[in-house]
Amino acid sequence: MAILDTLTGHDGLKNLNFKELNRLSEEIRALIISTVSKTGGHLASNLGAVEITIALHRIFDLPDDQIVWDVGHQCYTHKILTGRLDRFSTLRQEGGISGFPKSEESEFDSFISGHASTALAVAYGICKAKTRQGRPGHVVAVVGDGAMTGGMAFEGINNIGRSGENIIVILNDNDMSISKSVGAFSRYLSVIRSKPGYFRIKDWTESTIRSIPFVGKQVRHFLAESKSALKHALYPDTFFEEFGFVYLGPVDGHDIEALCDLMTRAKAIEKPVIIHAQTVKGKGYYFAEKDPGSFHGVSGFEIKTGALHTSSSKTFASVFGEELVALAAEDKRICAITAAMENGTGLDAFSKEFGREGRFFDVGIAEQFAVTFGAALSAGGELPVFAVYSTFLQRAYDQLIQDATIEKRHLVLAIDRAGIVGDDGETHQGIFDIPFLATIPGIIVYSPASYIELAATLRSGFYSHDGLVAIRYPRGSEPEALSGHCADGLSYDISQVKDADILLVSYGRIAAEALGAAQRLTAAGTPTDLLRLNRVIPIDEKAIDSILGYKRVFFIEESYINGSIGQSLAATLLERGYTGRYRHRAITIIPPQGSPTSVFAKTGLDSEGIYTFVNEEDS
Amino acid sequence: MAILDTLTGHDGLKNLNFKELNRLSEEIRALIISTVSKTGGHLASNLGAVEITIALHRIFDLPDDQIVWDVGHQCYTHKILTGRLDRFSTLRQEGGISGFPKSEESEFDSFISGHASTALAVAYGICKAKTRQGRPGHVVAVVGDGAMTGGMAFEGINNIGRSGENIIVILNDNDMSISKSVGAFSRYLSVIRSKPGYFRIKDWTESTIRSIPFVGKQVRHFLAESKSALKHALYPDTFFEEFGFVYLGPVDGHDIEALCDLMTRAKAIEKPVIIHAQTVKGKGYYFAEKDPGSFHGVSGFEIKTGALHTSSSKTFASVFGEELVALAAEDKRICAITAAMENGTGLDAFSKEFGREGRFFDVGIAEQFAVTFGAALSAGGELPVFAVYSTFLQRAYDQLIQDATIEKRHLVLAIDRAGIVGDDGETHQGIFDIPFLATIPGIIVYSPASYIELAATLRSGFYSHDGLVAIRYPRGSEPEALSGHCADGLSYDISQVKDADILLVSYGRIAAEALGAAQRLTAAGTPTDLLRLNRVIPIDEKAIDSILGYKRVFFIEESYINGSIGQSLAATLLERGYTGRYRHRAITIIPPQGSPTSVFAKTGLDSEGIYTFVNEEDS
Repeated sequence: MAILDTLTGHDGLKNLNFKELNRLSEEIRALIISTVSKTGGHLASNLGAVEITIALHRIFDLPDDQIVWDVGHQCYTHKILTGRLDRFSTLRQEGGISGFPKSEESEFDSFISGHASTALAVAYGICKAKTRQGRPGHVVAVVGDGAMTGGMAFEGINNIGRSGENIIVILNDNDMSISKSVGAFSRYLSVIRSKPGYFRIKDWTESTIRSIPFVGKQVRHFLAESKSALKHALYPDTFFEEFGFVYLGPVDGHDIEALCDLMTRAKAIEKPVIIHAQTVKGKGYYFAEKDPGSFHGVSGFEIKTGALHTSSSKTFASVFGEELVALAAEDKRICAITAAMENGTGLDAFSKEFGREGRFFDVGIAEQFAVTFGAALSAGGELPVFAVYSTFLQRAYDQLIQDATIEKRHLVLAIDRAGIVGDDGETHQGIFDIPFLATIPGIIVYSPASYIELAATLRSGFYSHDGLVAIRYPRGSEPEALSGHCADGLSYDISQVKDADILLVSYGRIAAEALGAAQRLTAAGTPTDLLRLNRVIPIDEKAIDSILGYKRVFFIEESYINGSIGQSLAATLLERGYTGRYRHRAITIIPPQGSPTSVFAKTGLDSEGIYTFVNEEDS
Repeated sequence: MAILDTLTGHDGLKNLNFKELNRLSEEIRALIISTVSKTGGHLASNLGAVEITIALHRIFDLPDDQIVWDVGHQCYTHKILTGRLDRFSTLRQEGGISGFPKSEESEFDSFISGHASTALAVAYGICKAKTRQGRPGHVVAVVGDGAMTGGMAFEGINNIGRSGENIIVILNDNDMSISKSVGAFSRYLSVIRSKPGYFRIKDWTESTIRSIPFVGKQVRHFLAESKSALKHALYPDTFFEEFGFVYLGPVDGHDIEALCDLMTRAKAIEKPVIIHAQTVKGKGYYFAEKDPGSFHGVSGFEIKTGALHTSSSKTFASVFGEELVALAAEDKRICAITAAMENGTGLDAFSKEFGREGRFFDVGIAEQFAVTFGAALSAGGELPVFAVYSTFLQRAYDQLIQDATIEKRHLVLAIDRAGIVGDDGETHQGIFDIPFLATIPGIIVYSPASYIELAATLRSGFYSHDGLVAIRYPRGSEPEALSGHCADGLSYDISQVKDADILLVSYGRIAAEALGAAQRLTAAGTPTDLLRLNRVIPIDEKAIDSILGYKRVFFIEESYINGSIGQSLAATLLERGYTGRYRHRAITIIPPQGSPTSVFAKTGLDSEGIYTFVNEEDS
């Protein structure tokens, strides 16, 4: 019988010996592989964190002790061990359990986390509240080395290091974030990793000295406080120690016993502690170990062959990537920036082609840096594009205003995964980019609906504009109904039928749903036109004039409603004296996980919903 | 004759000897003191950077070499030395020179900078563009130790350290940002500072070894590459060295000759270099040295007595501070967070009173961390308020969505300096908070117009709400016309006259201007009502119903227009079938420096402008 099935309660594994725990890790690993092969999800990072999670649950007492997961997509083992084994097959499915920690889902999930580098801030807050209230319990933050490249993690080190609180940070170091980790910090970690013996000296020294009766404690104290050369020889400081942490490691992150030992020691130290665990991304599954980048986030795969399920070879991201390579081949000024998303954003070909010319920059999980850096590249005469997911660009709102807009720099934003993203759910929905970009003075925003329109708009972004130009497009592929469409002058197009006094206005891929609804309405005897925008900010004056001519206008958009295009257009229409009917349908919540098709249906954004919306208003 | 008057061109000081340079520094210091005593501005930080700036201009050749100033309010000496001596008396005045570097103002200002921690990203971009194009010139970033507490600076260290580019970072370390610098990094710097001899060993070792003919180079190379204990004894690594920088220092930041020596050496090193300069904030002016916090940003002062000009003892900030202390005295759960703005946000009394109870958190210049940390404190059962300037909250947009909203945590935002800020100009205008907060699902936003309303709203923010509650108020004092006003149920109030079919709608301090206009219009025979909102998101349904009853509605707001309340209200009105006239006046550019009164007059937001606006529409 599987050990996993015999565990009762979240602390059932506390009675197991290390041999059993190792068997448990095998079982969990097999379960994760088989589940994710069907549901899709973050495979490689979870395979790397199985033993760390088992050790955490063995040593710490949840929920008094709390585990804070950075990024959070490494939490599958934690979910399996905290009462969600039965529902594990519903992972990332509509109505199922989330692929990220979610405090609504379980009392063992301390805090939601979808964006990187936040765990230290969360752990610090939870710990400070405990301290103030005198409540018991340790706080552990599990942070990947990739997340450490984000500035917020450093802000955490800076605050926690000084606090003296016994916050325990598990640095899950696999030398990868999604792609290979970048930057000086990553290189620094690899130096530590490559010299385990070097750090063992310290451990050995300490335990040796400790064992000397009476004198040991004082000598240790002397060495700890001293800044002498002797101390440096025996105790080479790490970055972490300089910032007030006790450093334990490096330790094999797949050795449960060793991990348990260090965690036990960490609990007893009345200071912040870093446990540096070396892990292998994709551990235990041959194909994932071999190619952890491709197995980072998957849609599903064949276990035996490692063949990944890919829904379509061509996507908006791949079209962006190809077109960028073509443009860059003819213009040496074009550079590309990514924040640790080389593959996801379709920049892999660009990186391969132009990386050696110093035109490709992976700055780590550092969107703030990416935007300001891009604006400065532009100041220096380059033509930069920052390719980034909509949800992560939220991190750089201030830099878009301060360093790109006020400084008047020409920076192209290629915003991928705009709109509903599907399985990742709330924390990754790209529904705020339109609202927050709309607040930036002078910005130009496009929302192409087809590959051909994306390609033409990208070219225009480099050569027909100055300042900040955003081109946003969804995850996945173009809607069939709009394939080959490209707006006149990249601005807008209008599909007209005879005698229409109803106008639907839409943009992006959802315009295909509006088109379907318009056709159906027309066929049913309600002639309906469609205005499809490609340039959504600012809207073409001629398009606005056209709108004013209709008796009833329905604006349909795949965006959060407040601050949306439909709202600002309404303000324009009202100010210009429009007195017809105006109705607006957009997204009014942060939708939970579920396919775009399903979310559209639920929010009335599919052609059926739009059809009904218009008919109801019409009656 | 003063040396300053004899300098011709930006490189005139290159011919001066060190004695003359020292005299020059005295002259510049006197000029800064006398100018800022009249114009107001950032005094203490500029007095601390006089010698660093002189040394930079002596050693580097601008504009081929480029200096990037972090935060930028330490750039006065740079402005004086680059052709702006004549205009220095116009500092921060309307139409005068900016208190920050501004690339539009001079070819010697590489990049605008108003928000902290950006200089490394800018320097990296400018340097990479130079490298790619084979253009000559060094890039120097001048960064304060306060700015190093912001995560973006770390992202810069991480990227530059790995690049190997000869970017030179001058760490202007005065152990202060605006208040005392906080966190582990600051403590770490003070350790280095306190042991100059310790680091001199390294310098001595290196120069001694270098002087050995033939062998020196190899030995140095061996030591540099080695991770041996011997190396650690001779070469104790600093944080910066671990991240790929060559560390030079610490050096007395007021010793021009020593600074020039290190800068010359830094230019010759083909790697990133940090020069750690110790400076005294307020250097050379007794009162500023004694109390650098108060002399950080001043409105003017008496040179002889150090008496600061303060326009009013009571401000929105001071009322917030007092009220918070009163609330916190009765509720132990109330905690306050600041991002290095203890004094500016009015938290000094709170800090004094409750700091020892561990209820006051200065997290450094780390707004991102502040928001997530606050949300986590709330998760732990505390009642946190984050007091922050409107413009700096832009940094935490993502965290407001991810860590407060999605996680459904109760966090109160006390947003100071909302609206036009005056002398600091573009980079500090608080005109985006309404637009970006409006995009956050479920947020409640208040914009009190009087002290009494602020106090009542703050109480309500803690006790009548859950989730994210923002209370925004301007710099300075309440408008007299609204003193003592408090909206019914904190929602809205309406001033009605007989037979009015015109309605002005407004909120915040600018509502006083709208009130003035309404009164004048009424007196002139155009009866005009005023709806003043305190709760601007969401607007009370009854208030919307009232609006629908007017034939003409004029919305007046002190906010950037796109994404404003006036726009979303227009959308609501149009959807509800409103067919009257609707006109909206808000801010359509990022206004340059100038007093709020002047900006209101220029943008037609003063009562005169509103009066004309309504009359023009009416004719």
